[in-house]
Amino acid sequence: MPGKRKRSPTRWRKFSRRTPPGADPGTILPDASAPRPRISLIAYGPTGFIERDCATPEAAAAEMGKHAVVWVNIDGLGDADTISRIGELFGLHKLALEDVVNTHQRAKVETYGEQVFIVIREAAFTDHLEMDQIGMFLTRDAVITFQECAGDAFDPVRDRVRKRKGRICALRADYLAYALCDAVIDAYYPVLERYGELLEDLEDETIERPTRHTVERIHSIKREFLTLRRAIWPAREAVGSIIREDLPNIHADTKLYFRDCYDHLIQLIDMLETYRETGGDLMEVYLTSISNRMNEIMKVLTIISTIFMPLTFIAGIYGMNFSTTSPTNMPELHWKYGYLFALGLMAAVAAAMIAYFWRQGWFGGRRAR
Amino acid sequence: MPGKRKRSPTRWRKFSRRTPPGADPGTILPDASAPRPRISLIAYGPTGFIERDCATPEAAAAEMGKHAVVWVNIDGLGDADTISRIGELFGLHKLALEDVVNTHQRAKVETYGEQVFIVIREAAFTDHLEMDQIGMFLTRDAVITFQECAGDAFDPVRDRVRKRKGRICALRADYLAYALCDAVIDAYYPVLERYGELLEDLEDETIERPTRHTVERIHSIKREFLTLRRAIWPAREAVGSIIREDLPNIHADTKLYFRDCYDHLIQLIDMLETYRETGGDLMEVYLTSISNRMNEIMKVLTIISTIFMPLTFIAGIYGMNFSTTSPTNMPELHWKYGYLFALGLMAAVAAAMIAYFWRQGWFGGRRAR
Amino acid sequence: MPGKRKRSPTRWRKFSRRTPPGADPGTILPDASAPRPRISLIAYGPTGFIERDCATPEAAAAEMGKHAVVWVNIDGLGDADTISRIGELFGLHKLALEDVVNTHQRAKVETYGEQVFIVIREAAFTDHLEMDQIGMFLTRDAVITFQECAGDAFDPVRDRVRKRKGRICALRADYLAYALCDAVIDAYYPVLERYGELLEDLEDETIERPTRHTVERIHSIKREFLTLRRAIWPAREAVGSIIREDLPNIHADTKLYFRDCYDHLIQLIDMLETYRETGGDLMEVYLTSISNRMNEIMKVLTIISTIFMPLTFIAGIYGMNFSTTSPTNMPELHWKYGYLFALGLMAAVAAAMIAYFWRQGWFGGRRAR
Amino acid sequence: MPGKRKRSPTRWRKFSRRTPPGADPGTILPDASAPRPRISLIAYGPTGFIERDCATPEAAAAEMGKHAVVWVNIDGLGDADTISRIGELFGLHKLALEDVVNTHQRAKVETYGEQVFIVIREAAFTDHLEMDQIGMFLTRDAVITFQECAGDAFDPVRDRVRKRKGRICALRADYLAYALCDAVIDAYYPVLERYGELLEDLEDETIERPTRHTVERIHSIKREFLTLRRAIWPAREAVGSIIREDLPNIHADTKLYFRDCYDHLIQLIDMLETYRETGGDLMEVYLTSISNRMNEIMKVLTIISTIFMPLTFIAGIYGMNFSTTSPTNMPELHWKYGYLFALGLMAAVAAAMIAYFWRQGWFGGRRAR
Amino acid sequence: MPGKRKRSPTRWRKFSRRTPPGADPGTILPDASAPRPRISLIAYGPTGFIERDCATPEAAAAEMGKHAVVWVNIDGLGDADTISRIGELFGLHKLALEDVVNTHQRAKVETYGEQVFIVIREAAFTDHLEMDQIGMFLTRDAVITFQECAGDAFDPVRDRVRKRKGRICALRADYLAYALCDAVIDAYYPVLERYGELLEDLEDETIERPTRHTVERIHSIKREFLTLRRAIWPAREAVGSIIREDLPNIHADTKLYFRDCYDHLIQLIDMLETYRETGGDLMEVYLTSISNRMNEIMKVLTIISTIFMPLTFIAGIYGMNFSTTSPTNMPELHWKYGYLFALGLMAAVAAAMIAYFWRQGWFGGRRAR
Repeated sequence: MPGKRKRSPTRWRKFSRRTPPGADPGTILPDASAPRPRISLIAYGPTGFIERDCATPEAAAAEMGKHAVVWVNIDGLGDADTISRIGELFGLHKLALEDVVNTHQRAKVETYGEQVFIVIREAAFTDHLEMDQIGMFLTRDAVITFQECAGDAFDPVRDRVRKRKGRICALRADYLAYALCDAVIDAYYPVLERYGELLEDLEDETIERPTRHTVERIHSIKREFLTLRRAIWPAREAVGSIIREDLPNIHADTKLYFRDCYDHLIQLIDMLETYRETGGDLMEVYLTSISNRMNEIMKVLTIISTIFMPLTFIAGIYGMNFSTTSPTNMPELHWKYGYLFALGLMAAVAAAMIAYFWRQGWFGGRRAR
Repeated sequence: MPGKRKRSPTRWRKFSRRTPPGADPGTILPDASAPRPRISLIAYGPTGFIERDCATPEAAAAEMGKHAVVWVNIDGLGDADTISRIGELFGLHKLALEDVVNTHQRAKVETYGEQVFIVIREAAFTDHLEMDQIGMFLTRDAVITFQECAGDAFDPVRDRVRKRKGRICALRADYLAYALCDAVIDAYYPVLERYGELLEDLEDETIERPTRHTVERIHSIKREFLTLRRAIWPAREAVGSIIREDLPNIHADTKLYFRDCYDHLIQLIDMLETYRETGGDLMEVYLTSISNRMNEIMKVLTIISTIFMPLTFIAGIYGMNFSTTSPTNMPELHWKYGYLFALGLMAAVAAAMIAYFWRQGWFGGRRAR
Repeated sequence: MPGKRKRSPTRWRKFSRRTPPGADPGTILPDASAPRPRISLIAYGPTGFIERDCATPEAAAAEMGKHAVVWVNIDGLGDADTISRIGELFGLHKLALEDVVNTHQRAKVETYGEQVFIVIREAAFTDHLEMDQIGMFLTRDAVITFQECAGDAFDPVRDRVRKRKGRICALRADYLAYALCDAVIDAYYPVLERYGELLEDLEDETIERPTRHTVERIHSIKREFLTLRRAIWPAREAVGSIIREDLPNIHADTKLYFRDCYDHLIQLIDMLETYRETGGDLMEVYLTSISNRMNEIMKVLTIISTIFMPLTFIAGIYGMNFSTTSPTNMPELHWKYGYLFALGLMAAVAAAMIAYFWRQGWFGGRRAR
Repeated sequence: MPGKRKRSPTRWRKFSRRTPPGADPGTILPDASAPRPRISLIAYGPTGFIERDCATPEAAAAEMGKHAVVWVNIDGLGDADTISRIGELFGLHKLALEDVVNTHQRAKVETYGEQVFIVIREAAFTDHLEMDQIGMFLTRDAVITFQECAGDAFDPVRDRVRKRKGRICALRADYLAYALCDAVIDAYYPVLERYGELLEDLEDETIERPTRHTVERIHSIKREFLTLRRAIWPAREAVGSIIREDLPNIHADTKLYFRDCYDHLIQLIDMLETYRETGGDLMEVYLTSISNRMNEIMKVLTIISTIFMPLTFIAGIYGMNFSTTSPTNMPELHWKYGYLFALGLMAAVAAAMIAYFWRQGWFGGRRAR
Repeated sequence: MPGKRKRSPTRWRKFSRRTPPGADPGTILPDASAPRPRISLIAYGPTGFIERDCATPEAAAAEMGKHAVVWVNIDGLGDADTISRIGELFGLHKLALEDVVNTHQRAKVETYGEQVFIVIREAAFTDHLEMDQIGMFLTRDAVITFQECAGDAFDPVRDRVRKRKGRICALRADYLAYALCDAVIDAYYPVLERYGELLEDLEDETIERPTRHTVERIHSIKREFLTLRRAIWPAREAVGSIIREDLPNIHADTKLYFRDCYDHLIQLIDMLETYRETGGDLMEVYLTSISNRMNEIMKVLTIISTIFMPLTFIAGIYGMNFSTTSPTNMPELHWKYGYLFALGLMAAVAAAMIAYFWRQGWFGGRRAR
């Protein structure tokens, strides 16, 4: 009763869809309270590299075609006009753009003409699980990414481009798309490792010191595993289809890297499913823990009752008021050591009871049966 | 005991099939108590648009072939003759028509010659879940829809046609069929969001204040999830077959839109399965909640018994009637402060017991073990 | 203890196989206690129709080839010679005939040369579930059906032939085979509807007035669902293979009807699986119901104990025999209103206890926590 | 506590593999304590038939090629030299021979050159489940079978050959292989029927008179179902691959018989899975049974406590020692009918309590709530 | 409470990935605390054989091409430079090498150009489960193996080479790769057999003498089964793909041996799944065991209460202080044998209660209901 139940941040009503039923397909209706779009651009090739923020979509579009690879990143989806304008300038399909602003898509890969549209979900764990959607368009020489919120999953890739580290600057846009996907997927590892620790703590709590709130925590962690599952499994399918299918703009040598990425997803699924099975068992473990606790409580009650009931009964007998004028009526009352006899009788009974429970192993330490 | 159990409106016996076993296939035997058919017609093309109610099937049939797209909508299935007459006038297959009036079909797509027959189920949540069947025939230039009851799922599409909004008026009958399917499927979103809220409330109730009726509510919501599941999964298969297969009258460019529709179904399934798993866990959570409750009750009983049994025993001892003529018999009774000694002894015993329970953490607030 | 447990009629030992292990394949060894075969014949074509009972297999065989469609029906399998003789006369394969008399086959479709052999199971619910096997051979112009017992599933088809209702008389033997299968499969609807009602009653019983026998009923209904499942799922596979595969004597236009039949099987499976999931949940619901019941019992015990233990203790105190010659020893006994004081003290303690339980919400009506 | 727990004979450690890890593949290392091999030979053709025991492998090999079909059967695997020698004489592959002596193979079918190697498991139920492995080599005109122990599954086939009953003597070695497989598979029927009876008894026990040992029996039967499952499912795959694949020495007309055999396996799986589901439910039924039992016990305790606590309290009141010199102090003690009044008061309280429990339906017979 | 909970050695946080998210693919970042690499080399052909330890990667590379088969084994992965240097000298792909040092890969088979890269996990059970990763590269004439720790799984293969036992020395590098895989996989048998024994002990403990720690052990063994499962299932897929696919350097005749290896994996999976199902049941068995235990405790309490409450009540009656001047007030007190009468009454009540419980079968030995 005391203490407020902390609300888990991943609540069901988050599933809401912004576009109303029956609306014209391709309607762009972002959440007005979402952060407003911020456009930044990185362009590079085997030789050059530029990075800048763009005030308008037009400024970004102006750089198209001048570099080997152009990467336009939009953080925040809170303005329908900007999003639509970007869609027009870069020739993005309306159905894909609708998915970008309805930020509860499953991970997926779709082809619209010569463009590949990839949706992937990003996970972060601060003090709770946060999931954001990333929409990515891959054209021949550009990658356009839409992030629900400004996350930091892309930072290592930016660094690699800036410092011209590794192969990235020598390769094409599809390798950039891979590098971004890989960075997002690898960011699941620390999240899952954190959940591993939480789960371990929860196991200890469940087995060693279960409280009324433990069941809430188990239920809550299971729900978050479901959320993660809904993010990772479709990502596996999506990356799998990139490897298997013949998609435009994705070259055979990049597929080798996507295969590595797929491998990581399989590992993540492995970890998550192991957690889920263990989490599923915990409720059962909890139930046995409280049943054991009940047994302990009942034992105390039974031991106390079993010892004191006979004693009280004996005391009750010698509290009866039979007239002792008849010699057969309670002669003990007049014995010289009657009282000591009665106390001794009581002590004997109590000792017998305690011995019985001891032999039954009810005093935990020895043996349970 | 007090308060009537509210009957859930989705009961099993609703599964009844109207056509008796062994009847000739294609027998039209609608529920006589169902609302009588009401026929309305919308016809449009790149340039014109008409909308009217038709008193007879013949009036509707007369418009066929005069417009780019004709949409005949029949609300209510309560009259065998009208339905059969429509079937004849529009050349609908008898087996399909039998399915239209047996309103417990799974969603499906079937081809009869040049016609495509689509069954889809519509969901609405007023204060309970309501599911209606929609049967839809797609020919080259017409869509004929049969609704079990007059629902409002089609209204946004009617509006788009009336206001010539979006691409709908420039496109063919298959796009109209898509628009109608999409409107019906998108109408599942608010229903599922509502269930998300119900489930959340039920979780709070189960964890924080479970009553005898909670188990009923959990059982009932799980049953409604089953009903929704039986509607949504087959719809996914049906729309999937529209995308994959080469059906008459459905053009390749419309399939892109059906793919979007399929995507929505996948999302709905995702939501529903998450709800189902969580709902499934709730029963277990409830069981642990009432076990915890039992532990609380047992603790109260054990604490009270353990304190008062020894006290009553002590009182019993000094209520014994041993003759105090013998100096060894209950000398305490004649002590000057015998009574206070007895009371003090009792207080000491009670304090010891309370201290024991405190150390065991039985007074909830501190620690459970 | 009182009242006899009613034995469910579908017991496990019914699974017995008549042919001993290692017997020559094709051995015909029917259950001698089964009803003896009764042969009836219906033959029809676009123009004529005859119906008669045949005393011997030869009488039936004599009609072969004279009509467009000949339907020989054998009720009862209790005579090896008759069955073998029919097999010889109509050229039925020995392995198929062995399956006809071992009446615990799964539904299946097999091809033997130009013959199609169909096994299907028939369900009826009188006061318990009854399942019978139907074996059906389809040749170019004849259908030969073997029924374990004389059921009435075929009656509506006989009626349609007699009254020349619908298309049946104009079509070939494969349509007759379809009509018979369809009649058998449609007969599952009323059975499942009946189970829907039983399940609903059982749900009410489990939630509102669970007894020791409820668990038996739940266990029993789950077992009957398993039996139904073992009948319906294979039937779906069998009918599915009729649609997909290119079987002799089954024409493309009849497959459209079998597709309808397949559709019904899918619906039946849907119903059954929904029932099974709900039935599976009931055991859990029952467990929570009796746990709730236990809580109620424990509450009564705890309330009574907690009220009367302190009262008895107080009475015990004033029943002690301390010598009141010392003024500190139990002065209350000599107070003028000592007795009323004691009673008042008791009333106060009882009131405090009751108030405590009231505040804890233990008196059901108000709130549970 | 009293009574010895009977050990189930199918214990886990039986899973041991004889060949040590890393040994050269094809190492023959049979269990030295196993029965020593006993070689018997049956050879037959359309006209002749011989049957004899062979002292050495060479004696058996000498008959090869002289008859249409030669069947060499080896009972017991306890001698590496004999087994190896047989392998050499009949040209059996070393890897297959290694599997023959490691008698914990799954059922399977493998091709080694022109030989087909079949492993199948035989079941028998004496007072416990016994599973033995049968290894079978099929060459063009011979079948060589290795049995772990001398079972009697092959006896009906021997009889059929001896008595020249059925088609067996007119057909080739592949039919003999089929006949042997079929005999082994059909021998599962009586075993499963026996388990059906055991399960039925266990159901009755669980529902009507559960004891502490019931849970052991349920757990044990579930484990034996797992063992059977591990035998039957792979057999289905193995026989299925015989039907589907084009194996050497197996002719198309024999496949029809193997299809029948496959059908039996499907039926066996059906039975077994039904048993397994029912067995799985039993643990749950048992748990509800003991919960019901607990309720009964608690009811007795609660009824007794609730009746006697108030009575003892009343007795306690009139045992108090208030000085009756004050007229307000316990005037009842001096009433003429005070004692009867007290007894009457007690009777009234007891009656009220009993009435309360009666109305609550706690006396089983009437209603539970 | 007393006794320290022994920590299971396979904890979740072991899942950690060394390479940080977003790092360049192919980054070699081994665990610096891991043992430093130790390189050993075995080379052989049909005629010769050498074995030596190599101080540097270059020393090993120098032997390449001089022998029919070269096997380089690296124990320990604790030095990035050495690993990278080996990668360069033997032309190993960077992505594969990254997987070698991230030692939490699933078993898998990948092709990089003409090289086959195999990952497999090795299991050992000392007093807990230990899993290590083995990375293996197969080229035309060499096998390069990386072991996380120096295990002894490869020793039997080394022995076979040294002693030129079996076919191994006459065959190519792919046979060596097979022999190594087979040795690793066969090493699972003793581990699983050990778990079989542990599980059997745990079953006995759960049924016969469950303690609070039993639930921990069950939970822990289930978690270790999950770990084994995560190792064995992917190994099956990997070996399966070796058989099915056309991989470089793996010849058709070696595939026969890999098929044997695949067979062993199927057997291991069989064993493991059987263990897992049994382990899963144990929690349920445990729950029923403690419920049974609770019943026992409650019975003791109920028997004691039910016997002593009426007795204490009778004693209480005769302890009342009704003035016996009225002849109707407690005349028993003045009976000559009043006391004996009272004792007799008590004995009768106690006997009746004991008889009742005896008839109810509460004294375990006789019957439970």
